[in-house]
Amino acid sequence: MTETATQDLEITFTRLYRYAHLASIAGWDQAAMMPPKSNEARAKALAELQVLMHQTLTCTELAEQFQALDGVLLDDDAQASVREMRRHWQQAKLLPTRLVEAQSLAQSRCEHAWRRQRKENDWQGFLGNFREVVDLAREEGKLLAEVTGSTAYDALMDKYEPGMRSSDIDRIFGDIKSWLPELIRKTMAKQATDTVIKPQGQFPVDQQRALGVEIMTLLQFDFDAGRLDVSAHPFCGGVAEDVRITTRYNEDDFLRSLMGIVHETGHARYEQNLPREQVHLPVGQARSMGIHESQSLSFEMQLGRNPQFLALIAPLVQKHLGQQSALNADNLAALFTRVQPGFIRVDADELTYPAHVILRYEIERTLMDGEIAAEDIPALWDEKMMAYLGVDTRGNFQNGCMQDIHWPGGSFGYFPSYTLGAMNAAQFFAKIRSGQPDLDAQVSAGNLSPVFTWLGQHIWCQASRWDTSELMLRATGEPLNPAHFRRHLERRYLAA
Amino acid sequence: MTETATQDLEITFTRLYRYAHLASIAGWDQAAMMPPKSNEARAKALAELQVLMHQTLTCTELAEQFQALDGVLLDDDAQASVREMRRHWQQAKLLPTRLVEAQSLAQSRCEHAWRRQRKENDWQGFLGNFREVVDLAREEGKLLAEVTGSTAYDALMDKYEPGMRSSDIDRIFGDIKSWLPELIRKTMAKQATDTVIKPQGQFPVDQQRALGVEIMTLLQFDFDAGRLDVSAHPFCGGVAEDVRITTRYNEDDFLRSLMGIVHETGHARYEQNLPREQVHLPVGQARSMGIHESQSLSFEMQLGRNPQFLALIAPLVQKHLGQQSALNADNLAALFTRVQPGFIRVDADELTYPAHVILRYEIERTLMDGEIAAEDIPALWDEKMMAYLGVDTRGNFQNGCMQDIHWPGGSFGYFPSYTLGAMNAAQFFAKIRSGQPDLDAQVSAGNLSPVFTWLGQHIWCQASRWDTSELMLRATGEPLNPAHFRRHLERRYLAA
Repeated sequence: MTETATQDLEITFTRLYRYAHLASIAGWDQAAMMPPKSNEARAKALAELQVLMHQTLTCTELAEQFQALDGVLLDDDAQASVREMRRHWQQAKLLPTRLVEAQSLAQSRCEHAWRRQRKENDWQGFLGNFREVVDLAREEGKLLAEVTGSTAYDALMDKYEPGMRSSDIDRIFGDIKSWLPELIRKTMAKQATDTVIKPQGQFPVDQQRALGVEIMTLLQFDFDAGRLDVSAHPFCGGVAEDVRITTRYNEDDFLRSLMGIVHETGHARYEQNLPREQVHLPVGQARSMGIHESQSLSFEMQLGRNPQFLALIAPLVQKHLGQQSALNADNLAALFTRVQPGFIRVDADELTYPAHVILRYEIERTLMDGEIAAEDIPALWDEKMMAYLGVDTRGNFQNGCMQDIHWPGGSFGYFPSYTLGAMNAAQFFAKIRSGQPDLDAQVSAGNLSPVFTWLGQHIWCQASRWDTSELMLRATGEPLNPAHFRRHLERRYLAA
Repeated sequence: MTETATQDLEITFTRLYRYAHLASIAGWDQAAMMPPKSNEARAKALAELQVLMHQTLTCTELAEQFQALDGVLLDDDAQASVREMRRHWQQAKLLPTRLVEAQSLAQSRCEHAWRRQRKENDWQGFLGNFREVVDLAREEGKLLAEVTGSTAYDALMDKYEPGMRSSDIDRIFGDIKSWLPELIRKTMAKQATDTVIKPQGQFPVDQQRALGVEIMTLLQFDFDAGRLDVSAHPFCGGVAEDVRITTRYNEDDFLRSLMGIVHETGHARYEQNLPREQVHLPVGQARSMGIHESQSLSFEMQLGRNPQFLALIAPLVQKHLGQQSALNADNLAALFTRVQPGFIRVDADELTYPAHVILRYEIERTLMDGEIAAEDIPALWDEKMMAYLGVDTRGNFQNGCMQDIHWPGGSFGYFPSYTLGAMNAAQFFAKIRSGQPDLDAQVSAGNLSPVFTWLGQHIWCQASRWDTSELMLRATGEPLNPAHFRRHLERRYLAA
């Protein structure tokens, strides 16, 4: 009964999965491979596909198939599967196709021009495209919010973090703001007397890439089902069967690309280990962006900046980049835990990173809820950067409010996921450590399987079977508890 | 009036063009970038897109839009545009969606397995998948042939060479068979006493690639609207706005990759110079595969193996691959005109190449028309290779009937286009030379613009405005005339 009842829905959602495959690969290509003159043709092709996917999700037949399930007894698995399909459907049917197409085109245009405008620090030029992106996103937010009566911002954030509301975020970020500045101050004071040796480049791209591939192999990335390439803004794209991660190389500095690769490999392993027999349906896909970021940050922060892990990889670093004292295990650990407020979020250390996220959240929430206009962003940015990190960004748009791809790409409501992910990751590792008190010794010895086994069992193979709070509860025995994040940071940065 | 009358059709064909964009990029990725484990997901996604494109072409609305044009007075340009749209529509509506999907899946499966099976010389394993590809292609051919009453093979060839029939090909190839063996024999006798120095490798891939990029630049490939990559079987893919050519490198032998790049650059320049304002409609797209191959062979054979062109690029070859006497202009010319029958079509010299094509044509025609079965191919192959080229291929499937991607990929009726292309190219260059008697001197001096200007004006910007015979007539003043091809070969290979 169950099987027949959901079969038609599954056919439609399988078709959507295949369309999404093409969108993902074309999107990856756009960022990693595509020459500049083809952007317009690509943007139109991708917008056409967005329209098609939206039409597929909003066609009458699908509505009838959902209605046909009213009163049908489904088992728990089928209920979960239908719940996730319904979530996608309900969001889609609130939006007119015209808006979906207009957003796709406006975002492509704005993001493409942004790549140049950022280099030129051209905020006024950027505003010309960006206003339309903002207007369309607000319209989307309002339409999505109508049924639930939430704010526009909450409705947009729900796309990335189902069930999360800005009242939750305000509480969580409010807590962080109460202790983070003090922790940063104490850490900087403590580190003031540390000796940290700066690595002496050049570090040729080929050698950095070879190191990255070896680290990805250590982290069990499956190269028969994925690739490592280069893009201006690193990301994890592609599809579960074919995960494409990217990085960017700077021959003066290998630290960022190395840890960027570790980060994206965390995303990739989640995708590569989603339950393959269900990955064509929403219930078999990643739970939320906060859970996705928890995987990348489990790899980058919990594992990657752990001194034992850095001791494990130090010989690989030296093998590829040469022998120098800056590349020994202790100095790598010092480099990767060095706290120093700066302009750029993606280059931020573990402690100042949340401040970057909170600032963006506060700005994008008021922007989407109509309390400020796009023009007001730079002044707010300057004020908050000074207040939270003591950094002067006035007039420096390219390293200020124009630094991220999210806003030109129309992603409003995504930023909180980074810090939710960091908190989730801290909670997962607290749980892993409680079951494996000798985890650090095992990592030192090159045995990372306790981490992968736990994540595989509790997160990767669970996909979207449970909603996020249920997933957290089942995995760790408690709902999201920010105390683990604070404890992790204090242990790493203040302990002798 | 005209504009309104064709507007709805143009909207549909523009949508098809955008879908085809995604199919091309995903297809390029599959050949040049994709890791092996994702083939199944990719094949399903591409088949879904083929189904969608077929449904779009065969929907009731489109039929009504064509019917609405009955009796409407259209200007010449609009008539040409409608003629080309109608051609695509009429072919599509003869085929059931089920067949389109089954072909896409069977071809993906067969081609993917072929990559391994060819290495393993596994004809029996290959047959397991290939029989289905053959059966489905025959079914397609029969359905396409029903309306015109042609043979299945002719109907399939019409997809690549609109208007061409096997009775034409039989006549043309019959003529070639009457003089080619004697020409090959005489040439080999003449070359028997030539001194040709074999280049001494290794030639590292990076250096070969750098040389290729410089040659492509000389040939005015636009790198802001295209790329050069690597694939197992070189091809020109992507879209007109973003042309992706590929090659394969052998560090012992740079000759093949170099001339392969010149060949694909010819395809690429045709695509890059199609009329941009019409390229989203069939009338603005490439005329036929024989015209496409005429552009690659204009570059590879007419220009690329011309001693004056080789003298022009010899300094570039030496710059990238080192100074050795084998790389001087005279020896390069001797290398690139050396005639030696061999197993492999894509490695064949200019004189033995048509024999490879004729052999394939004769086999695939009887295969599609049901006169032979897939199992019969190897014996026929052996017999014809011995008869036409004196080469023994018995038991050597990998370098025999399993060497080409066309059949596993379901392309039957394509092979004649190669030799039609060679003949077209010879006819174009006869015309160019008649207007530019000092062409060789100009090429020596590095001025290739007479060639590009003529091709741009008479072929590239004409796209599908005229049918093939009209295009030939307008460009050269006569229909396809194989005598130009014979004269070109005799001049190059027999003249003192």
